[in-house]
Amino acid sequence: MSPTEVTADVSADLRADVVVVGAGPAGLNAARHLTRAGRDVVVLEARDRVGGRTHTEEHDGVTLEIGGQWVSPDQTELLGLLDEIGLQTYPRYREGGSVFIGADGVRTQYEGTTFPVADSTAKEITRLTELMDDLAASVGASEPWAHPRARELDTISFQDWLRRQSDDEEAVTAVALFIAGAMLTKPAHAFSTLQAVLMAASAGSFTNLTDECFILDRRVVGGMQSVSQHLAAELGDRVHLATPVRTIRQDEDGVVVESDRVTVRAQRVVVAVPPPLFSRISYDPPLPRRQHQMHQHLSMGLVIKVHATYATPFWREAGLSGTCFGTSTLVQEVYDNTIHGDDRGTLVAFVSDEKADAVFALPEAERRAAILASIAQFLGDQALEPVAYYESDWGSEEWTRGAYAASFDLGGLARYGADQRTPVGRIHWACSDLAAEGYQHVDGALRSGRAAAADVAELLA
Amino acid sequence: MSPTEVTADVSADLRADVVVVGAGPAGLNAARHLTRAGRDVVVLEARDRVGGRTHTEEHDGVTLEIGGQWVSPDQTELLGLLDEIGLQTYPRYREGGSVFIGADGVRTQYEGTTFPVADSTAKEITRLTELMDDLAASVGASEPWAHPRARELDTISFQDWLRRQSDDEEAVTAVALFIAGAMLTKPAHAFSTLQAVLMAASAGSFTNLTDECFILDRRVVGGMQSVSQHLAAELGDRVHLATPVRTIRQDEDGVVVESDRVTVRAQRVVVAVPPPLFSRISYDPPLPRRQHQMHQHLSMGLVIKVHATYATPFWREAGLSGTCFGTSTLVQEVYDNTIHGDDRGTLVAFVSDEKADAVFALPEAERRAAILASIAQFLGDQALEPVAYYESDWGSEEWTRGAYAASFDLGGLARYGADQRTPVGRIHWACSDLAAEGYQHVDGALRSGRAAAADVAELLA
Repeated sequence: MSPTEVTADVSADLRADVVVVGAGPAGLNAARHLTRAGRDVVVLEARDRVGGRTHTEEHDGVTLEIGGQWVSPDQTELLGLLDEIGLQTYPRYREGGSVFIGADGVRTQYEGTTFPVADSTAKEITRLTELMDDLAASVGASEPWAHPRARELDTISFQDWLRRQSDDEEAVTAVALFIAGAMLTKPAHAFSTLQAVLMAASAGSFTNLTDECFILDRRVVGGMQSVSQHLAAELGDRVHLATPVRTIRQDEDGVVVESDRVTVRAQRVVVAVPPPLFSRISYDPPLPRRQHQMHQHLSMGLVIKVHATYATPFWREAGLSGTCFGTSTLVQEVYDNTIHGDDRGTLVAFVSDEKADAVFALPEAERRAAILASIAQFLGDQALEPVAYYESDWGSEEWTRGAYAASFDLGGLARYGADQRTPVGRIHWACSDLAAEGYQHVDGALRSGRAAAADVAELLA
Repeated sequence: MSPTEVTADVSADLRADVVVVGAGPAGLNAARHLTRAGRDVVVLEARDRVGGRTHTEEHDGVTLEIGGQWVSPDQTELLGLLDEIGLQTYPRYREGGSVFIGADGVRTQYEGTTFPVADSTAKEITRLTELMDDLAASVGASEPWAHPRARELDTISFQDWLRRQSDDEEAVTAVALFIAGAMLTKPAHAFSTLQAVLMAASAGSFTNLTDECFILDRRVVGGMQSVSQHLAAELGDRVHLATPVRTIRQDEDGVVVESDRVTVRAQRVVVAVPPPLFSRISYDPPLPRRQHQMHQHLSMGLVIKVHATYATPFWREAGLSGTCFGTSTLVQEVYDNTIHGDDRGTLVAFVSDEKADAVFALPEAERRAAILASIAQFLGDQALEPVAYYESDWGSEEWTRGAYAASFDLGGLARYGADQRTPVGRIHWACSDLAAEGYQHVDGALRSGRAAAADVAELLA
């Protein structure tokens, strides 16, 4: 079949101006803006729910945020939408002391955002933080690949770069943690310094990432997935669940999007799924060489988000906020994640990348015991006996394959970044992982979806 | 549908003991060995031809090897098969001097395998070669991830590692070339030292990779694709072309493999396609987390294989073999690739990774002019006017997406390598890119296919 015959020959169940593939925040916001611009939109979602990597669900009587959940003050796109659709936010609990466990395994209680390490190490952390802040300000989040030092910064791993800046391994580990374990959820040897700088720049500065009172400021009453649920409710029967898209055909006349349930003929399509899933779809004609190559250099991180709920928030009674950091521990971060209006206390703990591999290799009971023991190192033995316990497993999900998000391998951001949002004919791309501001967060997803909608609306006009 | 109901409910067009997905050398050799063991096999191939990344085709009256073509003395699996099926080999032309262009852009004619560089640089190249030979001998090709230094070597890029071993940037560039541009076709910052060591070990030693009289020793009369054509002819109507596999379902009773044309019910399936294509197939139940993650960390390199044919092999008349190396040139390697029995002369030239990006961004005529000008730097202006000219473009092919082969990103080989050949239930994996000896070559494909067939045959018995 020649490319010019493709869409004319295929019978379609539905017709629309635009098909959106994926009903996460990016796709739904694209659909919302196109609908408001007077366009007919169909949204096709593989899962039987909307929300993508946001998922608010009850387990053992506790409502949990399995996926993305936090709102920071710079996330004005998300904050504006929350305001518009009438969703309330509440602050994360943060009264009391924090706990730190360093390379020596010693537990220290502290106040503020400066880790209780040796003065020389604290000075090094401050110096490295300033270096990263300067780079983030200089490189920016919009086009990191266009910076004069882009290739240089993209061809050295963040770990090697940090070690070249400082001989203080504890400072290096602490600074790496804020990007590696806490954000990209990859080991610091597996991503570039440019990728780390993008992560920092996308949140305003590296300092913002180190300040959990900023980056983990507030939560959404009713859960972050309710953002997507509101958008989907607005869109009504335009949203088709349990409808995996298999093939996108395009020619001069338009696109035909084939799914397991419906075929839709339209003018343009917005593919709003994580980049590692772009190649799950067949394209006719095939994507260009550039996309074939680029998509192989993007991969999701891996992190286990653990929820442990207790009869009471016992740490608060001990004068602790629940906030804990460990540079040598299995669990690298713990926070109070108590549900709005709940009398019980809930902790959230994170196990990232290679440590996640290690505990996923254990039987379930041993993994749970190891993770709870790690939390207990920070907060005491009361942590060992939760009334409810849940581990996220996004890596096993066919339509996600990791967590939190996708980032480039070494050299990939400088080599391919400029083309990651470039439409391929009638195919446009939207995803939190392609965002600038709000990169890898719901805020970035919304921005990316709105930007794709604007591009499409202009081309349809 | 629960997993236990999957295969019982699906009607099938065909039944077999084993389905093989992919009719490259790995898949066809798996099918051959299973057929010989008395098993019913069906081979499903997406393309309308067999051979995978081997492809012998006529362009402008010249028969060209678009894909893999060379045979080296260590490739005993391939040599044995050639012998068995009666295919002849002939030596690559190598009489006369070679040409080298170094960092300074100066063209030097030389004999032997030692680049004509400053004595101090030559000594450094020798020292680095010995280091790599020692590592290759120690690490081996079978289980590089199991070596005590695996993680250490896998978390540093080959470029950084070389620079830590030597301050002589010309020596570093020359040594990197043999792995980066010439084999993995990725920049040396984009893969690990362990990955480089695997490449060397799989060919017997690093020295073997630097000796083009070894690694590029012989060619197949009639072309390398004829190996696959012979195997396919043996298999007859068991091989189905133009039949892309879309879904593999498995349960306790067996597998059902769904393609665009036929559905096959079998006991086991061998997926014999390049690793970046594993995720192009839908799996029911989905693949485990480990595979979801691992497959995102494997990517194909990128190289343009250029064929330029001239009325005569003019370089031979000038006392040159046609063999050229450049560390600073657009074209990094040139060889005499004259077709067996042809009076005309054919050169093959390679443009790798980021340099390939750069010339692919040019209009076709400019790209051709730039590449021919680079060849002319080595062999003179007669190179500027070929009678036939062809550039490979594997990156644009939906069923390959790059060239020559797939390798891991930084840290990936140590983290995931041990599981890359592990069957997932009834699904087995075979590919040159999963091989030990002959890794990324036809020889490795054959070994990998035979090994998968042996595993499957044992489980069927």
